[in-house]
Amino acid sequence: MAAAADEVEQPDAGLRMSETDRLTAFSDGVFAIVITLLVIELRVPEYHKGELLTGLLDEGASYLAFVVSFVYVGVLWLNHHALVRLIRATTLALSWINLGILFGAVIIPFPTAVLASALTHGDTADRRAAVALYALAAALMSAPWLVFFGYLRRHPALLRRGVSPDYVRAQRLRPVTGLVLYGLSGLLGWFVNPMLGLIGVIVMIMYHAFTSEGLRRRAAHR
Amino acid sequence: MAAAADEVEQPDAGLRMSETDRLTAFSDGVFAIVITLLVIELRVPEYHKGELLTGLLDEGASYLAFVVSFVYVGVLWLNHHALVRLIRATTLALSWINLGILFGAVIIPFPTAVLASALTHGDTADRRAAVALYALAAALMSAPWLVFFGYLRRHPALLRRGVSPDYVRAQRLRPVTGLVLYGLSGLLGWFVNPMLGLIGVIVMIMYHAFTSEGLRRRAAHR
Amino acid sequence: MAAAADEVEQPDAGLRMSETDRLTAFSDGVFAIVITLLVIELRVPEYHKGELLTGLLDEGASYLAFVVSFVYVGVLWLNHHALVRLIRATTLALSWINLGILFGAVIIPFPTAVLASALTHGDTADRRAAVALYALAAALMSAPWLVFFGYLRRHPALLRRGVSPDYVRAQRLRPVTGLVLYGLSGLLGWFVNPMLGLIGVIVMIMYHAFTSEGLRRRAAHR
Amino acid sequence: MAAAADEVEQPDAGLRMSETDRLTAFSDGVFAIVITLLVIELRVPEYHKGELLTGLLDEGASYLAFVVSFVYVGVLWLNHHALVRLIRATTLALSWINLGILFGAVIIPFPTAVLASALTHGDTADRRAAVALYALAAALMSAPWLVFFGYLRRHPALLRRGVSPDYVRAQRLRPVTGLVLYGLSGLLGWFVNPMLGLIGVIVMIMYHAFTSEGLRRRAAHR
Repeated sequence: MAAAADEVEQPDAGLRMSETDRLTAFSDGVFAIVITLLVIELRVPEYHKGELLTGLLDEGASYLAFVVSFVYVGVLWLNHHALVRLIRATTLALSWINLGILFGAVIIPFPTAVLASALTHGDTADRRAAVALYALAAALMSAPWLVFFGYLRRHPALLRRGVSPDYVRAQRLRPVTGLVLYGLSGLLGWFVNPMLGLIGVIVMIMYHAFTSEGLRRRAAHR
Repeated sequence: MAAAADEVEQPDAGLRMSETDRLTAFSDGVFAIVITLLVIELRVPEYHKGELLTGLLDEGASYLAFVVSFVYVGVLWLNHHALVRLIRATTLALSWINLGILFGAVIIPFPTAVLASALTHGDTADRRAAVALYALAAALMSAPWLVFFGYLRRHPALLRRGVSPDYVRAQRLRPVTGLVLYGLSGLLGWFVNPMLGLIGVIVMIMYHAFTSEGLRRRAAHR
Repeated sequence: MAAAADEVEQPDAGLRMSETDRLTAFSDGVFAIVITLLVIELRVPEYHKGELLTGLLDEGASYLAFVVSFVYVGVLWLNHHALVRLIRATTLALSWINLGILFGAVIIPFPTAVLASALTHGDTADRRAAVALYALAAALMSAPWLVFFGYLRRHPALLRRGVSPDYVRAQRLRPVTGLVLYGLSGLLGWFVNPMLGLIGVIVMIMYHAFTSEGLRRRAAHR
Repeated sequence: MAAAADEVEQPDAGLRMSETDRLTAFSDGVFAIVITLLVIELRVPEYHKGELLTGLLDEGASYLAFVVSFVYVGVLWLNHHALVRLIRATTLALSWINLGILFGAVIIPFPTAVLASALTHGDTADRRAAVALYALAAALMSAPWLVFFGYLRRHPALLRRGVSPDYVRAQRLRPVTGLVLYGLSGLLGWFVNPMLGLIGVIVMIMYHAFTSEGLRRRAAHR
């Protein structure tokens, strides 16, 4: 496979490309692990004999954080899936940008655990900090996606047959939206009300869920 | 691979399909991680010098919970394997339904840990709660499978050559059975006796183990 | 792949076969996760300011347990690799036997953690229990391998072109040896001396490391 | 795949080769898991109501350790990717050398956790120990890479078409540099100043990041 025919014929002399399959396999592995590791944060509560149920119910809010993050990683995976479908080959630079995207995915369990802890054991100040951290992480996560699209624009030779540069340029809007609106959700959570900020984050995750479909629809019409 | 030839020729104009291999790789990754993470719940017991063996024996019941869940995830993987063999391509909707199925698998270590804790350190009330939680999780887990079969019925274009719509319709019986009987096992565990409920859950897991074979047999005779 | 051409033409009417690639991918995933999870048992020791080094040195013995288990899982992966190369297709029964093999691999981190704990914090009684547990786990682990070879003998249609039934029959010796000698190592560790038992286990792991090469050499000369 | 056509035609009579795809899949799995497990070390700090933010800020230094190790594993993966692209087939010996390389990757989360702990909770003596441990691990990690290149030199039959033995010989410089300079960074951290040692480690990681590109460039010009 990769080892058998890794080099790809190179229309753009400057670029050294290799096939995307190992990058895809590695990324799928990371997404699969992250989405599964989230559950590790779901701990059996400390409880006295006979009070397990109460203990579980007290943790209720942390299950919300788990579900939100599960959907979030799912959305990231679908978006990444659509992203890889845009390219016919990768380069070392693109592999590094992809590692940046994976970095954003890999940290999710941490703000998730912080959020779960603040929702269940913290006060309003803690919730403000947790929501702001979660939103900040999500906002920063958008940056490498922006870089990815920018790099593709500068190296159209990497695009798969039938993917138009205009289409790629249009896509840059999405990480920009993420950068801005996740950031605003964080500020909202910090200065106004943590729950409002959390709702903002959830809305944004939905936005990326739906635009991942949009992305794929347009990617199909060529 | 995926990147090389992702679009599939589309008999059903309305549907936008892509190959199933990345969905399969991602799902296999998730199942492999879940089935392995279960062991993390097997903790070295606290013990005083010289009492390790006693400590291990006291944890005995939690090993039962581990084995049950290992078999359960194995069954889910085999059933998922058979499920993917029904389709020739996936869509975004199907990817989301698949994420629902994976969600059901990913949470298993949590009710498993709760069950193990209740069996070893809890009283009857705790066991009732733990068994009911486990059965509830298992019952809800059946829902996305039901949705999956329903979606396939509405989009026969996704079926692999040789898989009959009647066959798919017949399959819906299985998640329905799961939904109902896991639910009953939970009620049994909660209102009657936790051990009875647990036995009900184990019986149901066996049912899905055997029908996964049934599924494959019928899938083969066409 | 799997989805594209899963059914295999069937010389043996009674058998329903499917390709081995998804089974291989799933197994590789499990082995990769187990070998990586071992490191989670390496915890940062509790320490007072300035005593981190002492704390680390006190854990020394647990690093031994980690290294032994890392090699062990590596050996299991190589043996499994050679095992899969014997077959041209899998069946549901074989998938279950394979799940039994994976079960043996998945539990390794637990006896490893118990052993590490006994070596660093336990007394002789604890070490005896830990070594016996480790050896017992290793002995039981050999059982599904035995079943695998027995199943192949009864279903030669599953063998890859060029793999002789005699060869497969000969292979059964290895899990039998494992079953017996791991068992003896356990008894040695329990009744005589834990360190002797541990050495016995290490010797057996080496045996499987070298016979995995033997296996592959013979598998190549056909 | 592997099962379908695993044996490779053998110019070098003495060598028994098999395809690299399962080795690649296993290695990618391990790298993906290690890079994701790092985040598990990022724990929610203990905190009193209202002091979550302070608690998070106090952990600041441990995030540095996390980021360094994330980049490190990313670099290892890219280098491993380039390494596998040198060979057309593997042998059992090469599989063991590869397990040695993976061993080096798998332990990273442990020195990372030790470093994070020393940076946040330790004193200078602890930091010296932690930086020395991290550098020592990194230095030892270079050894199997050296063995890998040496083995390739002795078995040119394993090289992919177009990879010159001279090129492979030249590559040995890199692990040697790692062995020496990571070692020096450790001594620097131990005898002079932990922060200087840490900077040395970071510089070396960057060196491997950039030479992985160099490696690939030269690998492409043949």
